[in-house]
Amino acid sequence: MKIDLNADIGEGFGFYKMGDDEALMEIISSANIACGFHAGDPVIMDRTIRLAAQRKIDIGAHVGFPDMLGFGRRVIQADPAELSKYVVYQLGALSGLARAAGCKMTHMSFHGALGNMAAADDALADPLVKAISEFDPELIISVSTNTAIERAANRHGMRCATAFLADRAYDDQGALVSRKLKGAVIEDKAEVLQRVIQLLSEGCITSITGNKLEMKVKQILVHGDTSGAVALARSIRDAIHNAGGSVVPVAQLVG
Amino acid sequence: MKIDLNADIGEGFGFYKMGDDEALMEIISSANIACGFHAGDPVIMDRTIRLAAQRKIDIGAHVGFPDMLGFGRRVIQADPAELSKYVVYQLGALSGLARAAGCKMTHMSFHGALGNMAAADDALADPLVKAISEFDPELIISVSTNTAIERAANRHGMRCATAFLADRAYDDQGALVSRKLKGAVIEDKAEVLQRVIQLLSEGCITSITGNKLEMKVKQILVHGDTSGAVALARSIRDAIHNAGGSVVPVAQLVG
Amino acid sequence: MKIDLNADIGEGFGFYKMGDDEALMEIISSANIACGFHAGDPVIMDRTIRLAAQRKIDIGAHVGFPDMLGFGRRVIQADPAELSKYVVYQLGALSGLARAAGCKMTHMSFHGALGNMAAADDALADPLVKAISEFDPELIISVSTNTAIERAANRHGMRCATAFLADRAYDDQGALVSRKLKGAVIEDKAEVLQRVIQLLSEGCITSITGNKLEMKVKQILVHGDTSGAVALARSIRDAIHNAGGSVVPVAQLVG
Amino acid sequence: MKIDLNADIGEGFGFYKMGDDEALMEIISSANIACGFHAGDPVIMDRTIRLAAQRKIDIGAHVGFPDMLGFGRRVIQADPAELSKYVVYQLGALSGLARAAGCKMTHMSFHGALGNMAAADDALADPLVKAISEFDPELIISVSTNTAIERAANRHGMRCATAFLADRAYDDQGALVSRKLKGAVIEDKAEVLQRVIQLLSEGCITSITGNKLEMKVKQILVHGDTSGAVALARSIRDAIHNAGGSVVPVAQLVG
Repeated sequence: MKIDLNADIGEGFGFYKMGDDEALMEIISSANIACGFHAGDPVIMDRTIRLAAQRKIDIGAHVGFPDMLGFGRRVIQADPAELSKYVVYQLGALSGLARAAGCKMTHMSFHGALGNMAAADDALADPLVKAISEFDPELIISVSTNTAIERAANRHGMRCATAFLADRAYDDQGALVSRKLKGAVIEDKAEVLQRVIQLLSEGCITSITGNKLEMKVKQILVHGDTSGAVALARSIRDAIHNAGGSVVPVAQLVG
Repeated sequence: MKIDLNADIGEGFGFYKMGDDEALMEIISSANIACGFHAGDPVIMDRTIRLAAQRKIDIGAHVGFPDMLGFGRRVIQADPAELSKYVVYQLGALSGLARAAGCKMTHMSFHGALGNMAAADDALADPLVKAISEFDPELIISVSTNTAIERAANRHGMRCATAFLADRAYDDQGALVSRKLKGAVIEDKAEVLQRVIQLLSEGCITSITGNKLEMKVKQILVHGDTSGAVALARSIRDAIHNAGGSVVPVAQLVG
Repeated sequence: MKIDLNADIGEGFGFYKMGDDEALMEIISSANIACGFHAGDPVIMDRTIRLAAQRKIDIGAHVGFPDMLGFGRRVIQADPAELSKYVVYQLGALSGLARAAGCKMTHMSFHGALGNMAAADDALADPLVKAISEFDPELIISVSTNTAIERAANRHGMRCATAFLADRAYDDQGALVSRKLKGAVIEDKAEVLQRVIQLLSEGCITSITGNKLEMKVKQILVHGDTSGAVALARSIRDAIHNAGGSVVPVAQLVG
Repeated sequence: MKIDLNADIGEGFGFYKMGDDEALMEIISSANIACGFHAGDPVIMDRTIRLAAQRKIDIGAHVGFPDMLGFGRRVIQADPAELSKYVVYQLGALSGLARAAGCKMTHMSFHGALGNMAAADDALADPLVKAISEFDPELIISVSTNTAIERAANRHGMRCATAFLADRAYDDQGALVSRKLKGAVIEDKAEVLQRVIQLLSEGCITSITGNKLEMKVKQILVHGDTSGAVALARSIRDAIHNAGGSVVPVAQLVG
C-alpha cells in the first residue's frame, strides 16, 4: 500500500512568506511549486526545488492565473488558447530552474480559479492539457476524479495522478462537492483522518450521501498554511505508516 | 563567407506592439526573443517562436530585468545570485514554449541594462553564465568582444557567437565605445554598410582611432524599431549577398 | 447647441505607444486618461494631463481592471468592495498628478470589462459609484443611457454626462446593443456621421429597429486608435461646427 | 514634552501579510502607509487608513520604487523627473483613499532604496520634494537630519518632521552612520531605550564617537516586523509616559 503525500508549496513572493514549507517538506513526497504567476518568484522557486530535491520530494509545477494580487483565486475570462501559453510558460520556467538545479520536473497541477474552471469546462481543459502534452508528454497531471481535466488527460494520452482531498466531501459520482454547498468542507480533523484510513484500508471513500465509493487514488493532498494544517498532515503521514503503508513520490506510483 | 543576421524581436506586450517583426523576419537568420520580463508575454513569445520556426530562423532568449515599465533599460542593483535565477526562469519559459511548438532554443543574449552590467562586471557575468551552463551547456551565448560575458563563457566552457554591432564604434581593444562618448553611435547609413562590407571582405573593422582590428564575428546585429532600421537591415543583407556571402542561422556557424 | 467631444487617451505604457493622442487632442474637449491599471503609467499620465490642460481639454480618469496584459478587457471576478478601492486608488492617483500639474480632474469613466460589468450589474455599479461619491461628490460620471451605472449615479446624487457612441447601435430602451449581436457596430463612416448630425439637429437617434428615440446627450465618444478613427473624429467635429454647434468641455455642460 | 511615535505599516500585498499592524497601531501616533509600489494594495491601504483613523493615528504615504519583488529595497536608476511622477502618483492614490474614508493625509516619507538615494543626492531629492510641494504644500515630510531631503524641503518651503531612529548610530554631523559600517545598528534593546530617554530628557543624542549632539526631533521611528520589535516599541512608549512625556500625532507637533 503505497501513496504519495502532495502539497502546494513555494507560495511566497519576494519578501513575503506563505505557509510553513520547511515543516511540510518533512512530511510530503511530492510538491506543487508556484511558478511566479499567482505566487512564487524565480528565487523562491529555485530554493524550493533544491530543498525538495534534497528530501527526495518529487517536483511539480503549480500553474495559475497571472494575478498575484488575487493569489490566482479570481476568475479571469481569458481566451483558452492564450491561457495554454501561460501554462506552458510556467511549466518551462519551473522545469528550467529544476534542470539548472540538476533535477527533473515530474508532474504539474492547476491552481485556484484556473483549476476550478478547467475542472468544470471541457472546452478549457482540452487546449490546456493538449499544450501540456506538447510541452512534455511524460508529465504527470494531478487531477481530481470525474473532472474535465481528467477527461482531457485521457484524450491526450497523458498520465494522471488522482488526488484525494481528505477534507472535502465527494458526491456519488466521485466529484468534489462545491464549496458553496453545506458539508463540502470537512472541518473535523478526526473525520479527515478516518477518511484517509478508510481509503487506505478499503480503497474507497464514503460519499456525502453515505454511499461507499471505490476510488483509485495515487496521492493525498495536504496543506501547510496553518500550524493546525501541518499537524494534520503529520497525522495523516503517521496514519499511513501505522496502517502499514508507505509514502512514495508520485512518479514512482504512476506507471 | 557565412554570417548570421541577428535581431531582437517579440518585444510587444499584450495589446502593445514594438517594431516590425514581420518585416525583420524576412531578413534575419536568428532571433533574440523577449521573455516576459522587460518585454514580451507568453502569447507573443509563442507566436514569435512559431513564425521564426516557419522561416528557419534560429530561436534564442533575450533575457532582461523584470522591469516592463523601463523596458529593461534601467539598472536594478539586485543580488547576482538572484539575477541568475531570473535568467534561468526566462530561459526555461522560452525553451518551454519552443519545445511545445516543436522546435529548439539555440542561443541567448542579455538585454539592456542587464547586458551592459554583465558585460562590464566579471562578478556579475560569472554567476549568470554559470547558471546558463547549468541550465543548458549547449546553449550559444551571443556576446560582444572583450566583455566580462565573453570571459565568463570561456571559463564555463560555453560556446559564444561574437556579434558585430555595425552602427557602434569600437576601441582598439575591440570593446564597444560607451554610448556616452562622442562618436559611439554611427548614424550615417552608408558608413554602417561600409563597415559590414569591410568586416566581410577583410575580416576586420576600423577602430574609433582609425586602427584596423581583426574581429572574428559570427553574427551582425540589426534593428527593426523604425522603418529606416528595417531598410538598413535589408541593405546589410543585400550587401552580404552581393559580396558573395550567405546569411546562415547562428547554430550552423558555431562549432 | 453645445456638445463635448470625449475620447480615451494616455493608453501607452512605458516605452509602448497606443493611439495618436497628439492628433486627437486637436479635436476633443474632454479626455479619459488611463490610470496605470489597464494602461498608462505615472509619466504618461502626467504628460497627458499637461498636454490636455494646455489645450483646455477637461481631464478625467479612465479606471479599469489591474490587467495590463489584457488591456482591461478581460472579466476579472473580484469582490465589488475590493473593486471600489481599486477605483478610488486610480481616481486619487490621476487627481494627484492633475493637482501637481496645477489643474483639476473633472470627470471619470469606466474602461473595458469593468465598464461593461458595472453597466450591466446594479450590485456592482452601486458600491463603485458610492465609493466615487465618497472620493469626490462633484465628479461627473460619463455614462451610457439605461445602465446600472447611470442608475447608481442618480441614487448617489452624482452628476452624469450621457455619452453617445455614434458607431454603436441602440435598442428601443436607449441601451447599447451587445457587440455580440449583428449590427451592433456601425462600420459605415457616412452613417456614423449622419447619426451625429441627427442627434445634434433633432435631439434623437434611430434605434436598431428603426424607431426614433429622444436622447439627452452631453458628449460624443470618439476614437483615436487608427488614422481612420482620427479622421472620423475630425469629421464629427467639423459636422458639429457646420451645423452651427460648438464643442465644449464636459464640465461646462453639466449643471 | 511631546513626541510622535511613527511606524511603517500596511506593508502586506494581496493575501500576503507583513508585520503586526494591529499591535503596532495600539502604540504609534502616526503611520507611513505603503502605496502599492513596493508593498501595499488598494484594499490594504483602505483598511489601514480606516484602522488608523479610528485610533486617531495620523495618516501618511510611504512612497517607494515600483518593485514589489524587491520590496523597494533595490536601487533602480531611473530618471529623477520620472521618479517624481511615481511619487505624486502614490501620494494621490493614498490621499484619494483617505479622502473617501473621510480623513486626510498629513505627511509622507520615502521608503527603502528610494529614501536612501534621495537622502544622499541633492539632484534627486530636489525634483522629488518639488513635486511633493506642487501636489500639496501643506504636507509634512518625515526626514532624517542632515540629508538632501531635509535640504530640499527647506528650499521648497515644505515642513519637515525630523525622525529619530533610536536603533541607529549617528555621526558628529547628525547624519545616520551607513549600515555598512560597524556599530551602525544598535542591537541592544536597553541601549536603544536609553537613547530614547536621553533624547527626551536632554534633547540630545550621543554620536558614534561619544560626543553629545543636540537633536530637534519630532518623531521616533519604531518597527513592527517582529514580536521583539513590537515589544520594544511598547517599551519606548512606556518610557515616554514614565518620563512625563506624551505621544502625539505628528501634525499636532509641526507648526
